[in-house]
Amino acid sequence: MFLKYCRTEEMDIKARVAAERNVLCLFDVDGTLTAPREKIDPELDDFIQALKQKVKIGVVGGSDYCKIAEQLGDGDEVIQKFDYVFAENGTVQYKDGKLIFKQAIQNHLGEELLQELINFCLSYMGLIKLPKKRGTFIEFRSGVINISPIGRSCTLEERIEFSEIDKREKIREKFVAALQKEFAGKGLRFTRGGLISFDIFPEGWDKRLCLDVLEQEGLDTIYFFGNETSLGGNDYEIFEDPRTVGFSVSCPADTARLCREMFFSAPPNED
Amino acid sequence: MFLKYCRTEEMDIKARVAAERNVLCLFDVDGTLTAPREKIDPELDDFIQALKQKVKIGVVGGSDYCKIAEQLGDGDEVIQKFDYVFAENGTVQYKDGKLIFKQAIQNHLGEELLQELINFCLSYMGLIKLPKKRGTFIEFRSGVINISPIGRSCTLEERIEFSEIDKREKIREKFVAALQKEFAGKGLRFTRGGLISFDIFPEGWDKRLCLDVLEQEGLDTIYFFGNETSLGGNDYEIFEDPRTVGFSVSCPADTARLCREMFFSAPPNED
Ligand SMILES: [Mg+2]
Ligand SMILES: [Mg+2]
Ligand SMILES: [Mg+2]
Ligand SMILES: [Mg+2]
Repeated sequence: MFLKYCRTEEMDIKARVAAERNVLCLFDVDGTLTAPREKIDPELDDFIQALKQKVKIGVVGGSDYCKIAEQLGDGDEVIQKFDYVFAENGTVQYKDGKLIFKQAIQNHLGEELLQELINFCLSYMGLIKLPKKRGTFIEFRSGVINISPIGRSCTLEERIEFSEIDKREKIREKFVAALQKEFAGKGLRFTRGGLISFDIFPEGWDKRLCLDVLEQEGLDTIYFFGNETSLGGNDYEIFEDPRTVGFSVSCPADTARLCREMFFSAPPNED
Repeated sequence: MFLKYCRTEEMDIKARVAAERNVLCLFDVDGTLTAPREKIDPELDDFIQALKQKVKIGVVGGSDYCKIAEQLGDGDEVIQKFDYVFAENGTVQYKDGKLIFKQAIQNHLGEELLQELINFCLSYMGLIKLPKKRGTFIEFRSGVINISPIGRSCTLEERIEFSEIDKREKIREKFVAALQKEFAGKGLRFTRGGLISFDIFPEGWDKRLCLDVLEQEGLDTIYFFGNETSLGGNDYEIFEDPRTVGFSVSCPADTARLCREMFFSAPPNED
């Protein structure tokens, strides 16, 4: 695979590899390496592993580690396949196959604010009427609290049904507005995730969190690839950050095309 | 193993096995085959597998399938090791390694009562103040709804801390009393489970649920072994049921002793 893309003398390759392995390609997951919440395409998977021969590679996703691991490999394969894996916007950090750091949202918010937030959400959801309600309305993660008015344990069918109601009745939008009003000035942010939930997290806990550890790695350049790089998108802050060289992609194929142009010198007619 | 316990002519053995494999030994899990929430002792595990050469074997536990699987084997081993595995009091049923039936609590209660119940719990928990609160306050399973005022995703340390507070302040007891008052006559039952939660389930959804499927299996006898067979215990109903021959055990070693006496004719000095 590697040789397919780079036809130079072997010694040249080795020197280049050594130099470029001091460069990091850091990828968003959903919409950048995979379709949202789907598994990575096997061809792109192979290509990324070929890229790893040339540069360091990492991912930074908003989902929790389990979801990212499921999308990018089998079991814990993902932490073998990528030099860096950052889950939950970088609050959970793996390097070279090992967990190196895990934030705890309670340490940042404090138990009191956290509990006010949780109790507000419990009470608010106690008043929401839906055709169906299931379980796991509040999921506590390392870097976010995930709130789902129907409950995360609903089936796919129930998930879609809720999503339709949510579109009409703006259940999540109103919920977030109520939280923003109640907790104004408390340093919280809210983003909608998927079809049935939204996330609450501390201000500043966006994907830039992973740059703190990466800064200490002595890398020459951090290339970041994301599909939601405009204001309000979850790649915006890290894309704009001076510590990265940011690329905005439209889909996983676009990510592959860009990386191929940047790191492989194959003539265009070869593909 | 088998020959160790039963020294008769080979043909005799085969005839006896054939006959006795029409008998079922059905075991409770916690306190009967294992210490509560712990893994089965390897020796008892071996003994039970030897017993399987002579009779059919099954388990019926109150926990969910994952927990029972973890206690009695690795991964999905449990459904290979036991002819029948009944989780969540028999609302989740495996036979010969396959899932054969799964109750859905919402079908029994109806969406309206279920939602009243969930909303009552959400609102009630929205008013509970604790030193710490985490996530997953309501877990929706096949046969029960599990309610935890601190949230199931707490750490072991937080779990113990809550349990101490609960002992003093009777948080769960008061919660259940409030539910019993609010939902009197609605056909619901409540039991405390472990340190941090309690279960809500329909009246009659005790371990007898598994007898409906077992009745159709043409078994000669169903021996049931449980450690909480007195009134109020979670083995009481199935123990008392005329369809079983019930045995009350004090611990896993007691279960082994009883089965050895019943099904193996080794002289006492052999052990
Ligand atoms: Mg994305
Ligand atoms: Mg940048
Ligand atoms: Mg028991
Ligand atoms: Mg009986």
